[in-house]
Amino acid sequence: MDIAALLTSAGINIAVCVVLFSLYSILRKQPSNVNVYFGKRLASRCSKSRDLCLDRFVPSPTWVMKAWETTQEEMLTTCGLDAVVFSRMVVFSIRVFSVAAVICTILVLPVNYYGRDRKHKNIPFESLEVFTIENVKEGSEWLWAHCLALYIITLTACTLLYFEYKSITNLRLLHITSSQPNPSHFAILVRGIPWSSDQSYCETVKKFFSFYHPSTYLSHQIVYKSGSVQKLKDDAEYMCKMLSSGCGSMEQTCKPSFAQCYFCGGSTNSFKIISNETDSIHGRTGYSDVHLNARKKECAAAFVFFKSRYAALTVAQSLQTSNPMLWVTDLAPEPQDVYWSNLCIPYKQLWIRKITTFAASVTFVLVFLIPVTFAQGLTQLDKLEKMFPFLTGMLQKKFVIQLVTGYLPSVILVLFLYVVPPVVMLFSTMEGCVSRSERKKSACSQVLYFTIWNVFFVNVFAGSVISQLAVFSSLTELPAQLAKAVPAQATYFTTYVLSSGWASLAFEIMQLFPLFCNLFQRFILGYNEDTMNGFLTFPYHTEVPRILLFGFLGFTCSILAPLILPFLLFYFVLAYLVYRNQILNVYIKKYDSGGQLWPIAHNTTVLSLLVAQVIALGVFGIKQSPVASGFTFPLLICTVLFHQYCRQRFLPIFKNNATQVLIDMDRRDERCGRMEQIYEQLSSAYCQFSSSDQSECFSSHQGEREDVRTPQDMEKANEMREDISWPPVIHSFDKPVKGGK
Amino acid sequence: MDIAALLTSAGINIAVCVVLFSLYSILRKQPSNVNVYFGKRLASRCSKSRDLCLDRFVPSPTWVMKAWETTQEEMLTTCGLDAVVFSRMVVFSIRVFSVAAVICTILVLPVNYYGRDRKHKNIPFESLEVFTIENVKEGSEWLWAHCLALYIITLTACTLLYFEYKSITNLRLLHITSSQPNPSHFAILVRGIPWSSDQSYCETVKKFFSFYHPSTYLSHQIVYKSGSVQKLKDDAEYMCKMLSSGCGSMEQTCKPSFAQCYFCGGSTNSFKIISNETDSIHGRTGYSDVHLNARKKECAAAFVFFKSRYAALTVAQSLQTSNPMLWVTDLAPEPQDVYWSNLCIPYKQLWIRKITTFAASVTFVLVFLIPVTFAQGLTQLDKLEKMFPFLTGMLQKKFVIQLVTGYLPSVILVLFLYVVPPVVMLFSTMEGCVSRSERKKSACSQVLYFTIWNVFFVNVFAGSVISQLAVFSSLTELPAQLAKAVPAQATYFTTYVLSSGWASLAFEIMQLFPLFCNLFQRFILGYNEDTMNGFLTFPYHTEVPRILLFGFLGFTCSILAPLILPFLLFYFVLAYLVYRNQILNVYIKKYDSGGQLWPIAHNTTVLSLLVAQVIALGVFGIKQSPVASGFTFPLLICTVLFHQYCRQRFLPIFKNNATQVLIDMDRRDERCGRMEQIYEQLSSAYCQFSSSDQSECFSSHQGEREDVRTPQDMEKANEMREDISWPPVIHSFDKPVKGGK
Repeated sequence: MDIAALLTSAGINIAVCVVLFSLYSILRKQPSNVNVYFGKRLASRCSKSRDLCLDRFVPSPTWVMKAWETTQEEMLTTCGLDAVVFSRMVVFSIRVFSVAAVICTILVLPVNYYGRDRKHKNIPFESLEVFTIENVKEGSEWLWAHCLALYIITLTACTLLYFEYKSITNLRLLHITSSQPNPSHFAILVRGIPWSSDQSYCETVKKFFSFYHPSTYLSHQIVYKSGSVQKLKDDAEYMCKMLSSGCGSMEQTCKPSFAQCYFCGGSTNSFKIISNETDSIHGRTGYSDVHLNARKKECAAAFVFFKSRYAALTVAQSLQTSNPMLWVTDLAPEPQDVYWSNLCIPYKQLWIRKITTFAASVTFVLVFLIPVTFAQGLTQLDKLEKMFPFLTGMLQKKFVIQLVTGYLPSVILVLFLYVVPPVVMLFSTMEGCVSRSERKKSACSQVLYFTIWNVFFVNVFAGSVISQLAVFSSLTELPAQLAKAVPAQATYFTTYVLSSGWASLAFEIMQLFPLFCNLFQRFILGYNEDTMNGFLTFPYHTEVPRILLFGFLGFTCSILAPLILPFLLFYFVLAYLVYRNQILNVYIKKYDSGGQLWPIAHNTTVLSLLVAQVIALGVFGIKQSPVASGFTFPLLICTVLFHQYCRQRFLPIFKNNATQVLIDMDRRDERCGRMEQIYEQLSSAYCQFSSSDQSECFSSHQGEREDVRTPQDMEKANEMREDISWPPVIHSFDKPVKGGK
Repeated sequence: MDIAALLTSAGINIAVCVVLFSLYSILRKQPSNVNVYFGKRLASRCSKSRDLCLDRFVPSPTWVMKAWETTQEEMLTTCGLDAVVFSRMVVFSIRVFSVAAVICTILVLPVNYYGRDRKHKNIPFESLEVFTIENVKEGSEWLWAHCLALYIITLTACTLLYFEYKSITNLRLLHITSSQPNPSHFAILVRGIPWSSDQSYCETVKKFFSFYHPSTYLSHQIVYKSGSVQKLKDDAEYMCKMLSSGCGSMEQTCKPSFAQCYFCGGSTNSFKIISNETDSIHGRTGYSDVHLNARKKECAAAFVFFKSRYAALTVAQSLQTSNPMLWVTDLAPEPQDVYWSNLCIPYKQLWIRKITTFAASVTFVLVFLIPVTFAQGLTQLDKLEKMFPFLTGMLQKKFVIQLVTGYLPSVILVLFLYVVPPVVMLFSTMEGCVSRSERKKSACSQVLYFTIWNVFFVNVFAGSVISQLAVFSSLTELPAQLAKAVPAQATYFTTYVLSSGWASLAFEIMQLFPLFCNLFQRFILGYNEDTMNGFLTFPYHTEVPRILLFGFLGFTCSILAPLILPFLLFYFVLAYLVYRNQILNVYIKKYDSGGQLWPIAHNTTVLSLLVAQVIALGVFGIKQSPVASGFTFPLLICTVLFHQYCRQRFLPIFKNNATQVLIDMDRRDERCGRMEQIYEQLSSAYCQFSSSDQSECFSSHQGEREDVRTPQDMEKANEMREDISWPPVIHSFDKPVKGGK
């Protein structure tokens, strides 16, 4: 492949991008598309209608200006910490690859180009390999340039990583302290409640915590087996029983299987909770049936609330009894973050689920090698001609050759990669994560390692499945193998950045799938109103791995084939604008993991640096430059030490909250006399059957579709339920929208 | 090597053992050796002198009877949980290898012997290889016997492991609950106290904990930079200053650099602590110097005491501030267990120390390959003849050949292995362990992996250093390589059990080094009294790896070369008697880790099973028996699942104390009104400069020599110090002896 072919490829992509971005800038101005491109504003009910004017059909760069101008503080308040962290990942990449691009253009590129005594053609017809390290002759004295560039890139990356980690840690602390009183700080999740034949889980929990933590225990809430059909049926049954047995003392019946009443206050709590005098209920035959049914539907899991954040933290962190499989305590996730259907999984199953999921994902990776190998095969034209003889004529044309070898393989790979996130999300769900953010984080790691493996390693070691694995089984030869293979594949990675990278951003901003759904609803089904009641949350599990993958490719290829850097830098700048626009306009924030994604980004970046250094070691070995190899080795050790230091210094804050911070918050709230109010809010915070129950399983590669009900829906639901009326429920129906702001 | 050679080797070893054991049974009756063979009784001051009679010079098996008859309960009360756990390791090995020996003799041995159509010689002249799996012909239908034996052995081992883990977990819980009030339950160790220019560490600690944990904080004790010479010098200086500046208000001066006063009570404590009114002292010029000196000598570490066990646990487990490198809290080790000189290591150094130590121990392993390769070379006689031509005549004799090939390599290996424990102990010390038991545990793991690597893998893959590493770099071929090499080396391992195993027990019981020291002192230096003031604690870091190594050899060789099993079984029975005798008579219990060694034993046993299964997979592959391979695979998976289950079910209890248990203990003590008494004991429990300071660095492969002072010493010291008198110190001087009981 020569420069001209690369530029052809870049031209195609730029054209596609310009068209799509222009189209976007028009489409977003159409009122009919407001729920596709302004889902976030719609959720917070501040969208304004536009008049019909010519301006609507002229492409304009206003969205670019808006995305560029928004400050971090604004993003933090409107979009949450996770969005800011994601944006910081992109900014970090822009910074580090700007430095890398400058250094490599000045230092490495000339050395590569003049690395061998040969007659140079005109630059447009020059092969791309002339610009890679392959062109440097063995034993060259100029390899110190590559080594120096590697040092500068590593130092820049580590310095930036350190300050980013520090600043994100501070943001996380700020997020914890400055946020509205967060119910999850006062709550813990208890699993593995022991089964007892003579009392319900509810009573067991109450007894245990009021015995062992009498001064701090506030109340608790049992988790029930869900399933919306089951719930409706039970509600109907309950209604029947109530009507048949006479509904005189309605207020007294908190306990039985009643959707809104899964909240039994402890003896010490200060809520206005309807007394759960089960004895009086037991007397009546009708109710005792109900009570038994309720017991059947209880899960061995509960949320337990404490009077202070510090108390909740200490209980959550400690081993409760001498059997570690019982009374397992963890900090509770945020109310909107809870993944209810996984709470009912018996704790004893979790370890085996984790192992099974791990085995399944390894199998998935191995099975996935088949399409990847096929896509890789496309770069070898002779094989293709053998398989499809009728293409022979077409494959003679130069343009077609460029298209097929430079463009098609990565398109096929991208299409196959679109299958991955839903499958991995399924694995994460099966694994038994108790919160949505944890599930996304787990899926994010899995997708990340999956793509790095499939895009980088499998492509580098092209060939049959067996030979790829054989390369990895011989660990000592890995650096040399990588050193041989990576520069040869650098061209492919450059086209991958062009095709997959740029196009993915264009598709991201176009929101093709929701757009077509919207068009279908409006023009085929004839809906006029904004009927879409599912809004999207940001698909961190696909976008974080994408950004990190391009970072990985950048680090590993930078000193070997510096030509990739300008394209990569362009990708990151575009990504910065596109993702900020999407975060500001499209995706809603339903829950916030508090920057839990940054450690993943940090670790992956360090891994990228290490792989780059190992490859450099191999290359310097092949090029017979012991000095350069010798200098690379301490760099490798220093990078490992840097990583260890960051693990010590910052990681614990992402795992646990600091006592000092929580105690300060507790005291502040006590001084302000806000505690009573917080306790009241707690009572309605975790509402299992209010929302987000039906749509849990729907997740696509584009984003997890969360069911935040529209105000109309909520009002209807409230009306229905207000007949049986229990005040806190109304609060809880409002919650999702409040949280989404 | 044939059966006769093996029996020769066994004969030599049995003779050596019988001689040594008889010698022991005589030597132990000599009053002059009482401090060699009854150090434990001497420490608890209940040794009785014997009269001179003929009985003293006749070998007798009374010690065997005594060791056999002692029950677990007696051992638990007199020797502590760690000793019981060690004894259970041996019992577990006896049980599992009894089953293995029976199964393998009935099932595997005949299959191996008649595995190939060949003319059998007389059994004594039969080569040992005829009894290994190498003799089974390829594609044999009888390989199911090996597979079945593997199943039975694995099942037995896992069942026994499960019940052992369960029972040891119960013993651990019993140890925690039933023991005397343990100061370490109320104390935490704080490291990384932030430096402040305007107040001492002592004040900082007091301020921090009385602000954030006002209701539970009791008091604290700063750790000082130690070094006995430094201390004596400072004491003398202090005395001078005191005398020169007039010693009117002696009682008021608690704070300055004064060996006994490293205990500043918090405002809420209930001890009778002399008030530390530093302001009044600051006024005088003489004292302010002293105060500054004291500040200089303070470390950024302290013991902080809490009012209840539960409070100490919660504080120890949580992250204190938003900087994880400051205010690092851990549960405190037992007073006798504290390794004082490591407490002063700045917490920030610890991570880099750990990495450095890891790198150092890897280097050590690699360097150690040189002597091992040499020892291995001895089995090849032709090489030896080339190196030492003058031996040619001798090496023709059959007996010498048997001796050199069967005996000498393992003796050389054993001698070299004696260097390992002190070096590894040094690594563990450098690593920064804060307690002696933790240091021993760390050393134990290191020695374990070291010996398994050097005895097993290096011997199996005999050859140059490079080729050994090359084998490991190719992971997929490992099972096949092991399958080829292990049966061939089984003979060597059998002789290793004979020579190293049996002899090590004989040397252990003889206590050669202390015996010679004693003889030297008595007959050369002419001491008459029991002047040895250092007693030995049990060298878990050498003996646990030894037991586990033989278990490893047993599991890996059992179905391949079943002839090793009877020798191994004999070893374990002998070990049971010898170690019990030593634990009962020789070694003192100074501290107790509460069974922390069992998880190491469990993990190693599971690892042994897995390695055995992988080797079996390889062997079945080589012998072309797909059925047997197919059946081995699920066994491998089930073993991994079993291990994971045990990790979930039992391991957390060895890492943390359960809240329930501690709260119950707190309440029990409160009901009994014992708390005040406990608080008083706490004040003197952790005494940095009372004992065990000078001899910290002395540790040998035989055991760590602990300095428990003799009563005379203590009285002298007390007299000296009583002049300046501060009551709790006297308690703390008594402690070590009390703890040793």
